[in-house]
Amino acid sequence: MDMKASVIGATGYAGVELLRLLDGHPEAEIAVITSESSTGEAIASMYPHLSGRIEKNLQSMQELDAIAAASDVIFIALPHGHAMKIGKQLRGSKTKIIDLGGDYRFKDYHVFEQWYKVKHEDPEAQAVYGLTELFRDKVRGAQLVANPGCYTTCSILALVPLLKYKLIEAQGIVIDAKSGTTGAGRSLKAGSLYCSVNESFKAYGVASHRHTPEIEQIYSEFAGEDVVIQFTPHLLPVDRGIYATCYAQMKQGVTDAQIEEAYQAMYGDEFFIRLRGKGVCPELKNIRGSNYVDLGWQTDKRTGRIIVMNCIDNLVKGAAGQAVQNMNVMFGIDETAGLRQLPLVP
Amino acid sequence: MDMKASVIGATGYAGVELLRLLDGHPEAEIAVITSESSTGEAIASMYPHLSGRIEKNLQSMQELDAIAAASDVIFIALPHGHAMKIGKQLRGSKTKIIDLGGDYRFKDYHVFEQWYKVKHEDPEAQAVYGLTELFRDKVRGAQLVANPGCYTTCSILALVPLLKYKLIEAQGIVIDAKSGTTGAGRSLKAGSLYCSVNESFKAYGVASHRHTPEIEQIYSEFAGEDVVIQFTPHLLPVDRGIYATCYAQMKQGVTDAQIEEAYQAMYGDEFFIRLRGKGVCPELKNIRGSNYVDLGWQTDKRTGRIIVMNCIDNLVKGAAGQAVQNMNVMFGIDETAGLRQLPLVP
Amino acid sequence: MDMKASVIGATGYAGVELLRLLDGHPEAEIAVITSESSTGEAIASMYPHLSGRIEKNLQSMQELDAIAAASDVIFIALPHGHAMKIGKQLRGSKTKIIDLGGDYRFKDYHVFEQWYKVKHEDPEAQAVYGLTELFRDKVRGAQLVANPGCYTTCSILALVPLLKYKLIEAQGIVIDAKSGTTGAGRSLKAGSLYCSVNESFKAYGVASHRHTPEIEQIYSEFAGEDVVIQFTPHLLPVDRGIYATCYAQMKQGVTDAQIEEAYQAMYGDEFFIRLRGKGVCPELKNIRGSNYVDLGWQTDKRTGRIIVMNCIDNLVKGAAGQAVQNMNVMFGIDETAGLRQLPLVP
Amino acid sequence: MDMKASVIGATGYAGVELLRLLDGHPEAEIAVITSESSTGEAIASMYPHLSGRIEKNLQSMQELDAIAAASDVIFIALPHGHAMKIGKQLRGSKTKIIDLGGDYRFKDYHVFEQWYKVKHEDPEAQAVYGLTELFRDKVRGAQLVANPGCYTTCSILALVPLLKYKLIEAQGIVIDAKSGTTGAGRSLKAGSLYCSVNESFKAYGVASHRHTPEIEQIYSEFAGEDVVIQFTPHLLPVDRGIYATCYAQMKQGVTDAQIEEAYQAMYGDEFFIRLRGKGVCPELKNIRGSNYVDLGWQTDKRTGRIIVMNCIDNLVKGAAGQAVQNMNVMFGIDETAGLRQLPLVP
Repeated sequence: MDMKASVIGATGYAGVELLRLLDGHPEAEIAVITSESSTGEAIASMYPHLSGRIEKNLQSMQELDAIAAASDVIFIALPHGHAMKIGKQLRGSKTKIIDLGGDYRFKDYHVFEQWYKVKHEDPEAQAVYGLTELFRDKVRGAQLVANPGCYTTCSILALVPLLKYKLIEAQGIVIDAKSGTTGAGRSLKAGSLYCSVNESFKAYGVASHRHTPEIEQIYSEFAGEDVVIQFTPHLLPVDRGIYATCYAQMKQGVTDAQIEEAYQAMYGDEFFIRLRGKGVCPELKNIRGSNYVDLGWQTDKRTGRIIVMNCIDNLVKGAAGQAVQNMNVMFGIDETAGLRQLPLVP
Repeated sequence: MDMKASVIGATGYAGVELLRLLDGHPEAEIAVITSESSTGEAIASMYPHLSGRIEKNLQSMQELDAIAAASDVIFIALPHGHAMKIGKQLRGSKTKIIDLGGDYRFKDYHVFEQWYKVKHEDPEAQAVYGLTELFRDKVRGAQLVANPGCYTTCSILALVPLLKYKLIEAQGIVIDAKSGTTGAGRSLKAGSLYCSVNESFKAYGVASHRHTPEIEQIYSEFAGEDVVIQFTPHLLPVDRGIYATCYAQMKQGVTDAQIEEAYQAMYGDEFFIRLRGKGVCPELKNIRGSNYVDLGWQTDKRTGRIIVMNCIDNLVKGAAGQAVQNMNVMFGIDETAGLRQLPLVP
Repeated sequence: MDMKASVIGATGYAGVELLRLLDGHPEAEIAVITSESSTGEAIASMYPHLSGRIEKNLQSMQELDAIAAASDVIFIALPHGHAMKIGKQLRGSKTKIIDLGGDYRFKDYHVFEQWYKVKHEDPEAQAVYGLTELFRDKVRGAQLVANPGCYTTCSILALVPLLKYKLIEAQGIVIDAKSGTTGAGRSLKAGSLYCSVNESFKAYGVASHRHTPEIEQIYSEFAGEDVVIQFTPHLLPVDRGIYATCYAQMKQGVTDAQIEEAYQAMYGDEFFIRLRGKGVCPELKNIRGSNYVDLGWQTDKRTGRIIVMNCIDNLVKGAAGQAVQNMNVMFGIDETAGLRQLPLVP
Repeated sequence: MDMKASVIGATGYAGVELLRLLDGHPEAEIAVITSESSTGEAIASMYPHLSGRIEKNLQSMQELDAIAAASDVIFIALPHGHAMKIGKQLRGSKTKIIDLGGDYRFKDYHVFEQWYKVKHEDPEAQAVYGLTELFRDKVRGAQLVANPGCYTTCSILALVPLLKYKLIEAQGIVIDAKSGTTGAGRSLKAGSLYCSVNESFKAYGVASHRHTPEIEQIYSEFAGEDVVIQFTPHLLPVDRGIYATCYAQMKQGVTDAQIEEAYQAMYGDEFFIRLRGKGVCPELKNIRGSNYVDLGWQTDKRTGRIIVMNCIDNLVKGAAGQAVQNMNVMFGIDETAGLRQLPLVP
């Protein structure tokens, strides 16, 4: 019998991507979908690509307990600050929760409060950080999963093997990341207009983006020491995708073979991580619409650095896809269920 | 047991889209893939988005009989002029053939010769025209299916109900169609460079495009009289999609209700055709990556015309998707198998 | 001494394009720029591409008489409904007015009221319709010029020679037009977001767009009979440009030579109109950023139709460029002054 | 009387951009234009946006001495390896030469040979490196100017003030740069097709791009010590533009005020460099089609780094525009002549 999955905040880009993936999932069915700003409206009238397939009306999330009762799992796809209220209210419920926002991503809730400038209302929650490939065992038993951010997933996966096996210096890391425009969300801002983004490119949130401490937290965990990084996001004129170009100083004497081994050791058996190997630059389009992670790298003898290039679809592996992957793990089914679509190329 | 499907000409855009769809098909498996220009190469090295999923080398199609013996169905995704040789050679074989090119689309092979400027080498072939929704019964028993063109599928589906039910004049039809750039193929031409297409738009093949007689053939069949149309293709700066804006004079006294009924009568039960109804303009993005056909229409009292707007993904419903749909029908399995992916939005 | 030019409504796309062109104009200087929503703000902080060049603050247009006193010419780049108030207030002033909106474009103000659903407040105004190539002599002596719409300029120029010389039937004309996204303006709508427009395409305003009667008015004038057209606008995923594909029935016996002669007779000496001739499809990019009009055509023996393809930059020849061209004519200076920039290709 | 300017290699993107700028130059006229692959053809038939303006046929460059005799200045817009032959042949001629390729950019020709894998045929040439803002005085008297590369101009201008005033460490610099697709040139490669570039993004030439030593050469000169950098280029899905995100370690105790002063000291009076100041991220679109350089920066207390974001139009300030700027300086006319066009926004 299918799992009943509800989506709180179904009209944002991550929410609607969840609907796309859940619709194609062989063992899930969509239960309740909510939107506070469009309560009562048909999702297919807002998103006509869903017509004839997802013919449901949006509900309010006010009746949270009833929604939980009707659901095996609830996905929360809201701006930060909301999930902690929902998580608190549903504590002890048998419904599993996967939050796509920032509320539960930090071990130390003070870090959240410092970077998000909001008081945490559910600091005692026991959430598991849902970067599936790294924390699969914990996700398996989790009641509450904090799904990682999009830049975060891409950046973390890029360098964790090198930190874990101590092949790079833990300090001096620079991550220059570029995101498709769905990453800016669906709210109406002049900067998100077609004529603002098209034929343009820019950095933003330099030295202040909230995904920074999230990346540092996991890097530090694997490095066994505090890691401070330089993280710079940019806005790309494409719909989807994150491309992270990561710079790190190699430790003395590290060989290409050691690097390749580190990646193989951690990711060699991972379905969704495709190791392109040395000298290969992955391309954003080759992962579009899929849950794949395409990773390549190059070393530079002149500088002693390794440059790791990693890319994902921000709405799939960077949000809804990884959320479904976590759901699969939490419910003990095939981790790739509903996520085997090949990238849409061209 | 899975059907064995081979793709002759697997490296063009239509070929590689076939691979994407066949990979996700629950009852098919890819047998042989060929390319004369890249024989021996791994398809995943040309198209890295297939890595880890379709790890096959491209073969030559010279060993055609062996390929046929290893295949339940062969898709031909070559430029026109090749399929007729293959079809002729495999006549009598038990392997079914679906040709995505123009060779077998015309009842009268002289029309082919006139518009394609090539002598037909297999004029006695008994091919079925594979516009599935219109010719499903014939497709079911077919050995050789001529898959329709992309502009053609979009244009034909737009007006056939109105012609069949005699709601519009058969003469005076204008079809102004726009295609994504995959429609121009993957060959290296200055006009297909990014900097030529991006931020641009143009008509081409005005009054001479080869899809014209194909549309007229089916229009005439349903209208019961010879139909001559004005067809103008344009190149859109998007990867995928066909958008046809179709203009026809309504017969005296025709009502909106009759129009809606005609569409419902022919398409009301079709899974892949979504009737948006009067006053709705479909959008290209809402069908991207899917086998859907989104159709809307408007009438104009001032001119007595109906304007029908229809759109499809040229690589899916306009090529590989419809080919798989035909395969499903030919083999008696669920017509939507492998084709239920929702559009990729945004 | 330079003409003093003011722009009422300087922050929309047409307004800011006026600033770009006036800045490069050898005989004009920018006097006052206004915006009611951003009064007091520096234009260069809203539009950083103007930094170091146009360092002015936006004023309110409330002090209209003072603005007029400081200006030789006022451009009005506001939504319809405002210019008629300004025009009325400034009647008798020595300041010339060029309105880029719809208020003064119709000979019969009832047509305006019918299509724009607003009461006209200045019906006695004597405005000249500023399609420069067609009405240059009237523009020369005008005090108040109604600058044509973008779709309008493109569509009118395409067919007027054929109507004037009676080479096409006046009835049955279909104009299938496509506009870049600046045509949708800078207001915040979900449909104008990057992720809505990118990789998409759609018709809108079918059988109801307000540029329809404007085109018909001029067609009728040149045809010497009432012309009713079918006009369908579409939204293109590019920043700039209008492409009109125009379909008309040729009169019996009309030759290619007659068509070419008609175009040469009317446009042969026009600096901004480039006649590409028979069989040539113009491309949008080739006029980008310029005041050029690129026109090509094809005939179809099978249908007896001529297809005229015409394109302009909607912000230049379709708005600000033509406005400056009209200013040049009104002030008796070189008509091409400030407008000789070549298109930006690629 | 106008300067006579010839363009050797007029059909590439840089060549045709030179034509655009020279056409609009008040004191230059185009003399000879050449192309070996299209000798005899009209430039306006290859590039229809030039129709009616630049009606010249392409010549061969074989008659080099005659071309030189007819020219006050020759621009060379060819792939590397050709200019050194032309330069050698024209040594002693009174015609000035501006080379847009790599041949003459290196003080030490061995560096050229090492990175370009070609033997230098004119190692004794006395070329001036034409980054105008930095070497204006030398350009003034030069006979042969080596116009800098696009990535190079953008990267050099970003950090030179900080190196000169010793505000950053000379080692550990990382430049993550992104280029529009015109940067890949007009040759026919699968990777330059619309459907390859659109909706994609990728790094290339990692740790091996030829602009690396060119940047290092000038950095070292201003730093007074050998500088080795990490330089990574990427391909952006836009026509034009270079965006360089530059990372450097600030020296102990350096203040924001010192940084601002360094930029003001070097660039405060420069017409084409717009200092956006601290905390501002420039946007690519805001310099499109212009010779402007838009520079912003941010510091990060957590890491001690400064991040400088700099952008230019690769075809203008990164190629043809700077070439014309150099020409202006060499001939002692207003440095901004022909280069005052505002960016095309949107």
